[in-house]
Amino acid sequence: MTNNTPSKKTALRTHTCGELTAANAGQTVTLTGWVDSKRNHGGLLFINLRDLYGVTQIVARPESPVFKTAEETKSEYVLRVTGQVTLRPGDNPNKNMPTGEIELDAARMDVLNISQPLPFDLGEHAGVSEETRLKYRFLDLRRPRMAQNLVLRSRLSQVVRNYLYSLGFNEIETPMLTRSTPEGARDFVVPSRSNPGEFYALPQSPQQFKQVLMMSGMDRYFQLARNFRDEELRSDRQPEHTQIDLEMSFVDEQDIARVAEGMMKEIFAYIGEEVSGPFPEMEFSDVMLKYGSDKPDLRWALEIKDCSALFKDSQFKVFSGALAEGGVVRAIKGEKGAVFSRGDMDKLTDLARKHGAKGLVWLRFKEGHWDSPTLKFISEAEQAALKDLLDVREGDAMFIAADKPAVAAQCLGALRKELIARLKPAQIKKWAFLWVRHFPLLERDAESGNWTFTHNPFTAPLPEEEHKLDTDPGNVRSCQYDLVLNGVELGSGSVRNHTRAMQEKIFALMGYDKEQVQRRFGMIVNAMDFGAPPHGGIGMGYDRLIGLICGTDSIRDVIAFPKTTSGACLMSEAPSPIDEKQLKELHLKIVE
Amino acid sequence: MTNNTPSKKTALRTHTCGELTAANAGQTVTLTGWVDSKRNHGGLLFINLRDLYGVTQIVARPESPVFKTAEETKSEYVLRVTGQVTLRPGDNPNKNMPTGEIELDAARMDVLNISQPLPFDLGEHAGVSEETRLKYRFLDLRRPRMAQNLVLRSRLSQVVRNYLYSLGFNEIETPMLTRSTPEGARDFVVPSRSNPGEFYALPQSPQQFKQVLMMSGMDRYFQLARNFRDEELRSDRQPEHTQIDLEMSFVDEQDIARVAEGMMKEIFAYIGEEVSGPFPEMEFSDVMLKYGSDKPDLRWALEIKDCSALFKDSQFKVFSGALAEGGVVRAIKGEKGAVFSRGDMDKLTDLARKHGAKGLVWLRFKEGHWDSPTLKFISEAEQAALKDLLDVREGDAMFIAADKPAVAAQCLGALRKELIARLKPAQIKKWAFLWVRHFPLLERDAESGNWTFTHNPFTAPLPEEEHKLDTDPGNVRSCQYDLVLNGVELGSGSVRNHTRAMQEKIFALMGYDKEQVQRRFGMIVNAMDFGAPPHGGIGMGYDRLIGLICGTDSIRDVIAFPKTTSGACLMSEAPSPIDEKQLKELHLKIVE
Repeated sequence: MTNNTPSKKTALRTHTCGELTAANAGQTVTLTGWVDSKRNHGGLLFINLRDLYGVTQIVARPESPVFKTAEETKSEYVLRVTGQVTLRPGDNPNKNMPTGEIELDAARMDVLNISQPLPFDLGEHAGVSEETRLKYRFLDLRRPRMAQNLVLRSRLSQVVRNYLYSLGFNEIETPMLTRSTPEGARDFVVPSRSNPGEFYALPQSPQQFKQVLMMSGMDRYFQLARNFRDEELRSDRQPEHTQIDLEMSFVDEQDIARVAEGMMKEIFAYIGEEVSGPFPEMEFSDVMLKYGSDKPDLRWALEIKDCSALFKDSQFKVFSGALAEGGVVRAIKGEKGAVFSRGDMDKLTDLARKHGAKGLVWLRFKEGHWDSPTLKFISEAEQAALKDLLDVREGDAMFIAADKPAVAAQCLGALRKELIARLKPAQIKKWAFLWVRHFPLLERDAESGNWTFTHNPFTAPLPEEEHKLDTDPGNVRSCQYDLVLNGVELGSGSVRNHTRAMQEKIFALMGYDKEQVQRRFGMIVNAMDFGAPPHGGIGMGYDRLIGLICGTDSIRDVIAFPKTTSGACLMSEAPSPIDEKQLKELHLKIVE
Repeated sequence: MTNNTPSKKTALRTHTCGELTAANAGQTVTLTGWVDSKRNHGGLLFINLRDLYGVTQIVARPESPVFKTAEETKSEYVLRVTGQVTLRPGDNPNKNMPTGEIELDAARMDVLNISQPLPFDLGEHAGVSEETRLKYRFLDLRRPRMAQNLVLRSRLSQVVRNYLYSLGFNEIETPMLTRSTPEGARDFVVPSRSNPGEFYALPQSPQQFKQVLMMSGMDRYFQLARNFRDEELRSDRQPEHTQIDLEMSFVDEQDIARVAEGMMKEIFAYIGEEVSGPFPEMEFSDVMLKYGSDKPDLRWALEIKDCSALFKDSQFKVFSGALAEGGVVRAIKGEKGAVFSRGDMDKLTDLARKHGAKGLVWLRFKEGHWDSPTLKFISEAEQAALKDLLDVREGDAMFIAADKPAVAAQCLGALRKELIARLKPAQIKKWAFLWVRHFPLLERDAESGNWTFTHNPFTAPLPEEEHKLDTDPGNVRSCQYDLVLNGVELGSGSVRNHTRAMQEKIFALMGYDKEQVQRRFGMIVNAMDFGAPPHGGIGMGYDRLIGLICGTDSIRDVIAFPKTTSGACLMSEAPSPIDEKQLKELHLKIVE
């Protein structure tokens, strides 16, 4: 992609602190950087000079005119040092640093800037609170790991762009000052000075604009887009986040999947990892059945099994009763889980209850025998069938939930995660991609009881199920697909509605009349009147992807200047009050 | 940069409408696109099918099953057509279109979507109001010229990125939700729901964050950054605009200039134009003297000449009087300007008055004689010296202003533009780049009379003039440089202050006490305490650059979804009122 060693020579330096090797010995060079550490050894002063690219050892000899300056330097002083590159004497090369073969024999040393003592040691940040790190973000970013996260984030963005350009995509900038919609309860809004009482909204995604671009004939669009959402923040959320957003015309679901897979292949190739498509695909309904989650972590094979058939006529009323009420009986195995104590089992049962289950049946298989407080309710034939179905072996445990399908899925899905965390089974792969396809088009809104979209209102129904929209809308599957990586939802896309008739039909199912549609989605339905092409696309969370790749739990570690969970930037002290004059110009007043 | 002909094959098409040639004759292909035009010729129906990549002629024969569908199609219907590629019969190749050798003999034709009649004809938009074009932006963008503007904008952004990556820059995203400052009268602000009464500001530029990135050791930063400014809009302004923003550590002015020049070379090479650096450099004071503007259009050589020395002891009191009061006498020649009538001269005099001049002396040189109402006040020796100094020849005109230096510069600068517009002298180059260097560091604020910065408060003074900060701050030149192209200010950059002492000294000159500095610029001055490196950078207006390259007067032609001069998006109808509930959650009330 890029030359890996571009010259970074400037007026102030000939080389960086990361590039000198034995091949440079004898050359006179000038380096600039920060005092990373300093030590006195046998009368000589050794300074480790650091920049983004590495560390080079500087030597100041007692007889040299630079010695006094070197003595006076302190941690994080900014230096400019000129001298000769010399091989480290004898047996001293440091194999742990790329510049470990050489040192710089300082002949001239200028202090370009001084530094106050740091509020924390850059080398030992483990004990430093995140609050302090965020307040002094400019120092936290000097830590090589943080700096390398940002470099990798940057380089991978260029991998993404090069890949998409190679497929004929164009990056098109969509507006940041957009229209607020009544749906936009979580919109950040921006008062317009020249239109008193009116507001722009910052985009939650470029969704409508990118669809309009397809309607304008732009054919293949992408954007590394900044999106905004004003909501309660959790550790993996930020008020602004970056999305790899793309849209294509004249495509089906598979076309889009192939583009996304090719992108992942390029990204992972850059970090030396091989991933290859097509990625596994599963129906939404299957994935809920087998893993109890719409974003299962398939680094582990562990599956939930349906055992409803085994218990249809069971004497155990908990099972047969649930089945009689339209429920299911499902089980999951905990390999080597027989080590769990009664206390452990109680905790796992609590977890299941937290996810809505009335209870949890557990069994341990130890020394050739089942062990469980509920064993007496399960016949020997049922025990044998279960053992067979779940391939239970010596030392394993098993957990059974009998409940409504959604509840059984949710509690066993949570249990699956917990079993993986506690029992640490072997990973079957390092990077587990999965397409989850065919989400339901509509679901009942919990509050109003009306139909509402599951992902976004522009998703098309599966063509072969369109006919059910009139009779059985809850069972119409959509062209919606999520891309999951290691249990994280990376992206979500769909083939969209492109005719006004279908789009209005779906809005009608959600209870919107024509006037409401016009007011809320006027731009996009108007554009559908003038020859909108079939189209679809996907948006992928870039912060999350980079977080996974950098191996961090917090996306704050891959964002240069993140906000806290209360939406504050501790470094710049945003947000802040504004003055009365400005409020007045905006025709606004602050009220309790 | 990219493969120019990536496959755009999808589930719905085998080729695009821009790629079939005689080499494809005999192949069965499927195209998708819009009905651009249709005509009936000898019983055959010819449809020009259009997509982003071109136009292909479709033939529907009367005997074919597709004929009826073809007959029913209308302008902008979306079609999918399968058939055989055939050479156009006999002498019919259309050399004006890349696909002009072939046509597609339709065997199957599906209407993928219909279209209502368009509100304006895509081919003839000259008479269409910009308001209509903006309301139906999705249609306006179907016009090939508009679409190609967006494609070129996109491609050039990748040229920029590839170039900067090749020099070791990293693109780092800075926050959009930043801190509002008291200076930020033109900030767009964003109320924070979770911090009632507090606001974020959208960035007017990433200036402070990019400097902090240098202080964090990131060494070379760039970003194609979205900037915001809530101000009265003119035809070349938008509330949000894109900037190529970069910053480098351990550099001087020349390092940054070379990077910017290399970028321009790459950009112009992409469009087949050769430009090469180093670009000419001029001192701000010289450029004002010679061209009467800090962004002169050097496609024309035309220069203002100082003739103060000629008139020191002149009998003409208008000249000698102005000189005695510390003013100047300057002149500009209008080549072939003797054609100007008295009426023309009156208009040019009005122009000079509009720019603050008390009057304008003009002379025409016709048939070997001077002609001017003020000729009698100018001695023959003065006339001869003027003719010599300005190299006046038969048929030329000359204009003289006697005034304070700033007024003379401004009115002759305006006159220079007008003379170029009216007399249309030959361009000496197509792309005239110019570095304007060493702007004054400070100027008097028109309102308060205090010193204020001319560009931004972080610009460093020229090192050799630092000593004058205490004694003569108004005459300290800065490390500020503007890049001008064809009379348009493309970008502005500087070497920055990197020590807290110098930064505070400059703030003190501007009348800020320590507490105000901390409140307004706390983030950046705090970071200066901990080893800030020498650094500098530049920001270049991307919309303007692309506008120049696309040869359009309006940056709205190179922005996908621009706003009107009142800040409205006519397509999405932003801004708009928000509901009471949302206002309440934001703790805001709208007042008169």
